[in-house]
Amino acid sequence: MKTDIVRIDRGRREALRDCVADEVPLTIHINDEELLTVSCSPHDLKELSVGFLFSSGFVRSLAEIEAVKVDMKNWASYVKLKNKDIDKRMMFKRLYTPGCGKGALFYNPLDLMHRKTFGNGPAFESRKITGSMKIFQELAVTFRETGGVHSAALGDGERIVIFKEDIGRHNAVDKVIGAALAKGCGMEGMMFFTSGRVSSEIVLKVRKTGSCFIVSRSAPTDQAVKLARDLNMTLVGFARGQRMNVYSAKERIPHG
Amino acid sequence: MKTDIVRIDRGRREALRDCVADEVPLTIHINDEELLTVSCSPHDLKELSVGFLFSSGFVRSLAEIEAVKVDMKNWASYVKLKNKDIDKRMMFKRLYTPGCGKGALFYNPLDLMHRKTFGNGPAFESRKITGSMKIFQELAVTFRETGGVHSAALGDGERIVIFKEDIGRHNAVDKVIGAALAKGCGMEGMMFFTSGRVSSEIVLKVRKTGSCFIVSRSAPTDQAVKLARDLNMTLVGFARGQRMNVYSAKERIPHG
Repeated sequence: MKTDIVRIDRGRREALRDCVADEVPLTIHINDEELLTVSCSPHDLKELSVGFLFSSGFVRSLAEIEAVKVDMKNWASYVKLKNKDIDKRMMFKRLYTPGCGKGALFYNPLDLMHRKTFGNGPAFESRKITGSMKIFQELAVTFRETGGVHSAALGDGERIVIFKEDIGRHNAVDKVIGAALAKGCGMEGMMFFTSGRVSSEIVLKVRKTGSCFIVSRSAPTDQAVKLARDLNMTLVGFARGQRMNVYSAKERIPHG
Repeated sequence: MKTDIVRIDRGRREALRDCVADEVPLTIHINDEELLTVSCSPHDLKELSVGFLFSSGFVRSLAEIEAVKVDMKNWASYVKLKNKDIDKRMMFKRLYTPGCGKGALFYNPLDLMHRKTFGNGPAFESRKITGSMKIFQELAVTFRETGGVHSAALGDGERIVIFKEDIGRHNAVDKVIGAALAKGCGMEGMMFFTSGRVSSEIVLKVRKTGSCFIVSRSAPTDQAVKLARDLNMTLVGFARGQRMNVYSAKERIPHG
């Protein structure tokens, strides 16, 4: 929204109109039962719902989803699954242990079901990474307006194929995943871009897509680095201008 | 942790040792029942647990807590409440609707119980805000090392009284709240500082402390601005160097 603010600069005051990022509470339902509510930006809510269910391990493909309806008046989405007997305990488990379990560090039961270690996978020269990050930054229109959103994208080294923004860094990634699934756009062999910090949860989300390549403008955590190494995923952080830090599987970034 | 990375700069490669922020999964228990697991930085876990319970509305003062134990081996904390009959449905409600409800936008049942609109409250000249932010930045040692953590603090306009860092912006605020409660440090009349974006959830957390003054280096969302105006809280964003944007209750920032 546009709103009145006062800007103070070295004690001097100026009344201005400024843009702030919109936030709404989206309640996601599965088979008519409330699953959870997320604070998010009020667009691409279908993609967010589908992407969240996929990246959390509730569904493994679009084929498992019968229908998705979004109610923009009450900020609710309703996902009907073909399987009506989704395990409630697993839903709870997921809510109790977001992104991590008590047994094996950082794997919950749903994550364990989708375990996968990557082979050699695709390769991208560093100039393709910096080139893609440049486009990624240019596309971040809402960020430039508000300074209050994250962005995420999917790219093939030449083009950014899908680009999404959201006030939450997890949501932005989920929206990209949901949009890719809806378009039938294969994510294996693609690079995932994010403006946000990379925690273990982000690595686990991307892993499920089949992509083994994460590029972030920001920092990773130690668990993200360890997971990426375990899973043989390439994790690039602080990708800014011509620079980047490569934390794992650097052989996927050949010279050039 | 310290780890080996490859830094690429204009195609040139350099092997380096670099610092990344540590991440652990802390499972918080209430009265021996698992409540939830949060990804966090592995320090101040007692403060995080108490602060989370307070800022989520489970407890309203330290007096309601009988004991807190932290198990650093299994990354678990156990909070014993004096009231053994904490309403489980409310716990679920909270988990189902983090920071927002379906009825009144952005209020869950627990939030409604703690409703409060502020009176005139304290005043801080803009030079006190910029001065405090300068100290706040200087204290952000882990951020300078890793680029991967947020910070939060409590200050009286002269000094930063409590300062905490965490990989999560919510956790950093919760740690400050937990530390303030443990020290018996009154939060009314104090300023809350955060490096992170201010969503409605952050405003609701701070509101519960009795502080009506939030200063952030980053952007607020529209809901945060609306809530701050409704509650008569002062919300300052983009506080960087000598500049800041004031979104609400600007009369608490007198000239000077």
